[in-house]
Amino acid sequence: MTKILKLKSPADFIGKQGPGVISFGSGQPDLPPPKETFEGVDLTRDLRYGLIQGEIKLREKLAHEYPGSTAENFVITNGASEALDLIFRSWGKGQKVLLPRPYYYSYLPIIQMAGMVPVFTDLIDGRIDIEDFKKKIGKCKAVLINSPSNPTGRVEAIETLKTIEKVTQKLGVYVVSDEVYKDLIYERENYHIHGNHVITVNSFSKTYCMCGVRVGYLWSSDKSVVEGVCEMKTHTSMNTNLVGQDMALSAMKAPKEYIHRQQKIWRQRRDYIYEGLLNLGFDLWKPEGAFYVLPKCKNARKFLSLLYQDYQVITYLGEWFGAPDRIRLSYALDIKQIEEGLGRIQEAMKKVNVL
Amino acid sequence: MTKILKLKSPADFIGKQGPGVISFGSGQPDLPPPKETFEGVDLTRDLRYGLIQGEIKLREKLAHEYPGSTAENFVITNGASEALDLIFRSWGKGQKVLLPRPYYYSYLPIIQMAGMVPVFTDLIDGRIDIEDFKKKIGKCKAVLINSPSNPTGRVEAIETLKTIEKVTQKLGVYVVSDEVYKDLIYERENYHIHGNHVITVNSFSKTYCMCGVRVGYLWSSDKSVVEGVCEMKTHTSMNTNLVGQDMALSAMKAPKEYIHRQQKIWRQRRDYIYEGLLNLGFDLWKPEGAFYVLPKCKNARKFLSLLYQDYQVITYLGEWFGAPDRIRLSYALDIKQIEEGLGRIQEAMKKVNVL
Repeated sequence: MTKILKLKSPADFIGKQGPGVISFGSGQPDLPPPKETFEGVDLTRDLRYGLIQGEIKLREKLAHEYPGSTAENFVITNGASEALDLIFRSWGKGQKVLLPRPYYYSYLPIIQMAGMVPVFTDLIDGRIDIEDFKKKIGKCKAVLINSPSNPTGRVEAIETLKTIEKVTQKLGVYVVSDEVYKDLIYERENYHIHGNHVITVNSFSKTYCMCGVRVGYLWSSDKSVVEGVCEMKTHTSMNTNLVGQDMALSAMKAPKEYIHRQQKIWRQRRDYIYEGLLNLGFDLWKPEGAFYVLPKCKNARKFLSLLYQDYQVITYLGEWFGAPDRIRLSYALDIKQIEEGLGRIQEAMKKVNVL
Repeated sequence: MTKILKLKSPADFIGKQGPGVISFGSGQPDLPPPKETFEGVDLTRDLRYGLIQGEIKLREKLAHEYPGSTAENFVITNGASEALDLIFRSWGKGQKVLLPRPYYYSYLPIIQMAGMVPVFTDLIDGRIDIEDFKKKIGKCKAVLINSPSNPTGRVEAIETLKTIEKVTQKLGVYVVSDEVYKDLIYERENYHIHGNHVITVNSFSKTYCMCGVRVGYLWSSDKSVVEGVCEMKTHTSMNTNLVGQDMALSAMKAPKEYIHRQQKIWRQRRDYIYEGLLNLGFDLWKPEGAFYVLPKCKNARKFLSLLYQDYQVITYLGEWFGAPDRIRLSYALDIKQIEEGLGRIQEAMKKVNVL
């Protein structure tokens, strides 16, 4: 008999990896950062407080990636998480936020902790249902989108993004666009949704494989947003750590080739796991970006418990992402490990009815 | 005519320092970190996500400084600021927090942003009025104390701290004890107020002169506090940056002699500025810890504006700290600069009536 685990969130799996464990859990690259990350970083640099908004050199460098921007449009944060948290906290309580479902698991607590009220719009085939979006957006202060998406792996069509851009602008609704996977699109270039009502959230974690350094940022051309976030950050964490910011600046010196090489590796893995799960009979969306698959899965909690306890395979419950009939697998693993993991999943499928 | 500046908070002075400016503003050591800080820190270490609670080695090292503690009693945070922010956010909204006044300028926004309600107890001669404290504490969820104090420079008597410890324990009220200046007491050793109802907030910033690295922590023997904070931090910032945690661990290897040498320097500066301001006729409390003085000052905003614009001297308004009839000076400057700054203040006093 499989003991059903009482796991509440992905955090319950942190630190559970070890020899023999195949983890399709945590969403972080297993590849090393570009070698440039470590070049010219001086640990003994002036370690006094930095600007709350972030180091000017890093913001100037970022401005080159965002046409028409200046350093004033950016705030450097402790990862994309802090950027999101501060954005929603800086708005008034009780207001509504439109949230496409399934969503990244921190979105819901971040919105709720800010005292805001989530309004859900369910994805169709992993993509935004623009009719439902239009129906619900009017009553909201903001919408939080994420393309490429964690956990669906889907990338919104440029047409959809442009419609969202336009509809929200007309209504005076903010778009918070989490683009932390913008450099991990297999199909096309990223479309940077923009406008004075758009706040882009981004990070160095996924592009440059430096999740633990905790350097992210937000972009906004709305001065009141930048000032509101900086005002809060003055009290809640002050400047983002300076050595991390130096590492982020150095990482940006890596040639574009680095990013293309990464994309190639991720595409191979995507193909491998997507085909593998299809062959096992799973019903799933084909990832177009990021590094997640979210197959349908009956008896998800039982299956996850079995996989973890009897097969040393970590997967995440879809219910943590607002998709109770699914499980999420990250494919931030080399092909050999994915192969081994799929083999174990195949064995486990003999004991639990998942299809 | 002096233009009266519309400064709203200390943040308005960030980045305003430059050649010729004497800054009694920002509260950060001007001394370098111990050389050990940089030893053995490997930038190329595994940069994947770390534990939300903090690196185990750092927490184990900290446990040696807190008798009867284990690594489980600590959460490593983005400076003491984040620890405070998460503690108050993890409690229910609408509850009261007792706050001695004058207070550190971030305390009030942190309490208010968490949706909690401040109840003030006014200090007498810069120290807690224990009778007023007893009168007001019963209705509160928590009290936030800070000894040695920013901005008063005062250190509470051990007897007072023990009374607070006892009274709150009896009533089931939490004590949040911000001890970031615990290694900067000129008179005696720190008394670590403790108990299951005490949450200590601390930092590496002041002791080891590494404010910009943003590594602080909280200590609590109450499992629900530690878990509540970690749960929030999972969504709001994830692990504290790993290189910074490594630097903090290395800094802790500095011999105690390092801290004693620092204390000697601070005591000299304290004596110099305290005597200097007394000689200029100011009414002020003698600092017993930290590195701040908070003299009485009539026409404070006018004087501050004059000092900044005509004499290139930065000081902070007492009103930012809940003391509108005072100004705050940090003496994180070498004696020569303090001397120069006091000379300029003497000149400025001829133009504004401050005494």
